[in-house]
Amino acid sequence: MAQTRRHFLQQVGITGGAGVLYSTMSALGLTGLAETAAFAAPTRADLNGRPRKHVVILGAGIAGLTSAYELLKAGYQVTLLEARKRPGGRNWTVRGGASETDLAGVTQRARFSPGQYMNAGPARIPQHHVTLDYCRELGVAIEPFINQNADAYLYREGTTALSNKPIRHRTAKADVYGYVSELLAKATDQGALDSYLTVSDKQALIGFLTSFGSIANKDGGFKYTGSGRRGYTVEPGAGTESGTTESPYALSDVFASGVGSYFSFEFGWDQAMMMFQPVGGMDRIPYAFERAIGGEKIRYGAEVLGLRNTSSGVEVTYTTGGRPRVLSADFAICSLPPQIAAKIPSNLPTPIVDALKYARPTNAGKIGIEYGRRWWEEDLRIYGGITNSTLDTGNTWYPSTGFHGRRGTVIGYYNTGTNANLYGALTPAGRLERAVAQGTKIHGEVYGREIEASFSVNWATAKHSEGAWVGWPSQTDGTYQRLLDPTGNVYFAGDHLSHAIAWQHGAMTSARATVTALHHRVVTSR
Amino acid sequence: MAQTRRHFLQQVGITGGAGVLYSTMSALGLTGLAETAAFAAPTRADLNGRPRKHVVILGAGIAGLTSAYELLKAGYQVTLLEARKRPGGRNWTVRGGASETDLAGVTQRARFSPGQYMNAGPARIPQHHVTLDYCRELGVAIEPFINQNADAYLYREGTTALSNKPIRHRTAKADVYGYVSELLAKATDQGALDSYLTVSDKQALIGFLTSFGSIANKDGGFKYTGSGRRGYTVEPGAGTESGTTESPYALSDVFASGVGSYFSFEFGWDQAMMMFQPVGGMDRIPYAFERAIGGEKIRYGAEVLGLRNTSSGVEVTYTTGGRPRVLSADFAICSLPPQIAAKIPSNLPTPIVDALKYARPTNAGKIGIEYGRRWWEEDLRIYGGITNSTLDTGNTWYPSTGFHGRRGTVIGYYNTGTNANLYGALTPAGRLERAVAQGTKIHGEVYGREIEASFSVNWATAKHSEGAWVGWPSQTDGTYQRLLDPTGNVYFAGDHLSHAIAWQHGAMTSARATVTALHHRVVTSR
Repeated sequence: MAQTRRHFLQQVGITGGAGVLYSTMSALGLTGLAETAAFAAPTRADLNGRPRKHVVILGAGIAGLTSAYELLKAGYQVTLLEARKRPGGRNWTVRGGASETDLAGVTQRARFSPGQYMNAGPARIPQHHVTLDYCRELGVAIEPFINQNADAYLYREGTTALSNKPIRHRTAKADVYGYVSELLAKATDQGALDSYLTVSDKQALIGFLTSFGSIANKDGGFKYTGSGRRGYTVEPGAGTESGTTESPYALSDVFASGVGSYFSFEFGWDQAMMMFQPVGGMDRIPYAFERAIGGEKIRYGAEVLGLRNTSSGVEVTYTTGGRPRVLSADFAICSLPPQIAAKIPSNLPTPIVDALKYARPTNAGKIGIEYGRRWWEEDLRIYGGITNSTLDTGNTWYPSTGFHGRRGTVIGYYNTGTNANLYGALTPAGRLERAVAQGTKIHGEVYGREIEASFSVNWATAKHSEGAWVGWPSQTDGTYQRLLDPTGNVYFAGDHLSHAIAWQHGAMTSARATVTALHHRVVTSR
Repeated sequence: MAQTRRHFLQQVGITGGAGVLYSTMSALGLTGLAETAAFAAPTRADLNGRPRKHVVILGAGIAGLTSAYELLKAGYQVTLLEARKRPGGRNWTVRGGASETDLAGVTQRARFSPGQYMNAGPARIPQHHVTLDYCRELGVAIEPFINQNADAYLYREGTTALSNKPIRHRTAKADVYGYVSELLAKATDQGALDSYLTVSDKQALIGFLTSFGSIANKDGGFKYTGSGRRGYTVEPGAGTESGTTESPYALSDVFASGVGSYFSFEFGWDQAMMMFQPVGGMDRIPYAFERAIGGEKIRYGAEVLGLRNTSSGVEVTYTTGGRPRVLSADFAICSLPPQIAAKIPSNLPTPIVDALKYARPTNAGKIGIEYGRRWWEEDLRIYGGITNSTLDTGNTWYPSTGFHGRRGTVIGYYNTGTNANLYGALTPAGRLERAVAQGTKIHGEVYGREIEASFSVNWATAKHSEGAWVGWPSQTDGTYQRLLDPTGNVYFAGDHLSHAIAWQHGAMTSARATVTALHHRVVTSR
């Protein structure tokens, strides 16, 4: 089925153009659904007999692959140069047998069991990102990514009754929403908000708060006294067992603990559930692109040494296995990270190189820990989701797949900035040791038992990436903008040239914009 | 793998007893996790040479199957009598080819495509229910059930700006939480809550509200003015596209609309994400029980005509294909719905029959509509989840599986009580017509297009069920309690004898309690 479907869709993509599929999707309009800036894939017909152009693409990450895929639909000649031995760039799924040497010269070999893996880079896809459209078009099967779980934990260091112990998301929410509702209902009822609310506003608001916070009515002083939403110490069940709950934490402790600081993460445009992941690993996407493009068009192990605009096109110098080569083409799309592109000798004007240097790389780190037993399901009844803490590990992810299996791979930390640098400075063994010590604070001794393998990534020292993603001091002061138009015959693309930085959506929409601009230039040329 | 694993686990179950597996799971304790009342499966060793007892079980629904499965572990002889031709009772997955005649004499034949199905009864499992333990033990593969989706809709009839049109959950939440935060921050800052809050409480609370509601700081009057959490009309993407958002709805409209009334559903103990479903249909559970028990122990098409306590055991009269039969056994477990059990001629004392009659059946209805195109994904970018409305359809469920496939089956309504009765009174064609008319209000004309099949269930007129579940006027006034102890050699079991009514968890925990009591009696007899 998958095979047939993939081929069918690729056929539609190649012949009708992704635009045909995409315009169907864009014909939404019913209500409140974001439209991604209109994109019509280039078509061969547009060329109207013009000669076939050759585009060299620097980098076979998501932006490079998307660019190549879309250009091929219109019959462009495409050559991708990729320094790594695989497609995807930061979209990297680590499986058993993988070996990686970082910029500090440290080599790690992954010893994950068959079927186990970690997505070292991007790992989740919101429903509205074009990433899912490419999954559909390329036949990449998807499954839910569990970004939110009421039974995962919040862990806050501190001195309150809620501090230094794991609190279930559901418990924290029940108490915070309970007290917020009690306080706002009281203030409303006492007339404190009469200058903002009509009588019917007040009625409707209090009605909402009663349900939202599970609080008493007016006669009961709108009091929050807990509810089953917090969870049970003994679950409701047979006969007379109606369940045993504990009293809520004290209001002062709840707010002092900071336990509510993570709630809004789940409301985010690109983090609210539902989220998805490819079945089998995020790199199913780059490998599907590779198949659709044709692997022979990608030169792996090709490090770019120079990039020049020439009078008739571009000239790229690169090396594979020590041998320098020169490639001439009509156009280049540079999809390398800007901090790397800036270092490549070129005849690009200084303002362009300065714009590339304007990007500020951010670090992020992840560790995958394979366990021989899924204790988070069996002992803690946590089926996927994220435990958020103020420890330097940041977020712990339980696997979104393989439920009830024998093994599972937990992301022991996914952190950024200072915390990522702290772990990045350690040896791989040191990272695991520290992650286990921190995870044990949350999960108990089980966190250190039955560990079968681990692998960690520190994106700041990852060869050919040198960072997890970039931030711009500004995206509106004119510097960033220099990279949005071509410089001679050189175009740029990448998530860094979008407002969806660090997302594949950013790389894909940037690639689409670049391909559109390039194609427009070609079809409007004399 | 599944095969091996299932057999391994069944072996553990049969030899070590589910208790071995279960006690591992119960050894949790870390924090805040509900423990289900301790259960140790009966073991053969307990019998200590006593003669093997024969238990006849009325009904091969979830309670009956669980009872049989657990008793078999200790070597009891077990016979199940089931009026239907299949196991599971209300756990019923309808696939193409299924045919069902209801109590009104109306026959429906399901014409779903291969691979398409609807779970007519239970359809979701919370992480903490023992249902998942049985899935693990029996080797039933599970996958996420999508009970919450920020991109599904809320639809409220009325006269506000938000009425009579679909509003995304995320939009409603952003506005409600925004205004709640603004109002509470103002009241707090103005001192209206000073009798309840210390200075540091106030600081911490306002800090929380700023993040929770995405509101301005004090200098900005704590104003809520919308945010990307509401969603975008143009999504952030390439180049300078930072996304376009709309202004929030007016405060009065937001609260008057009642758009927040459904939020608390998602905080419920047994409805908060994550939730799960068996891969391929909920009936994978009863069929796995059937395999584990041995199909030869279940007599299908067996309608019970009479039940008698005798001096030495029980005597059950039943009919298969018109021929009356008598079965004698040491004990009976009656797991039939109480409203049906009450009608069976028996020598049960009047207070027991009265207790059975004390149960009040509730109706519920569902329609499955198979579409030839997954327009909810392609056009609306809704990948699973629930649209909640004030229309008589109640809730609409988008499928939790088969993403990006060619077809999909939407639950067009899942409603209860009056609304269920309203649809139940219609012909199957009439139900579809009405459901489509209502669904079109929310989703537009697409809702009526490319319909390939549909099937509806009205539990009140479902043979052998006569209701979706029951409620008790009271579970503490002594009447309900009469059914928790055996009457002579007759025991009762079922979700109705639990505080998890309408959940398989209720049926399973009730069965466990009943089996435990029966076994205790046997092993403590002289």
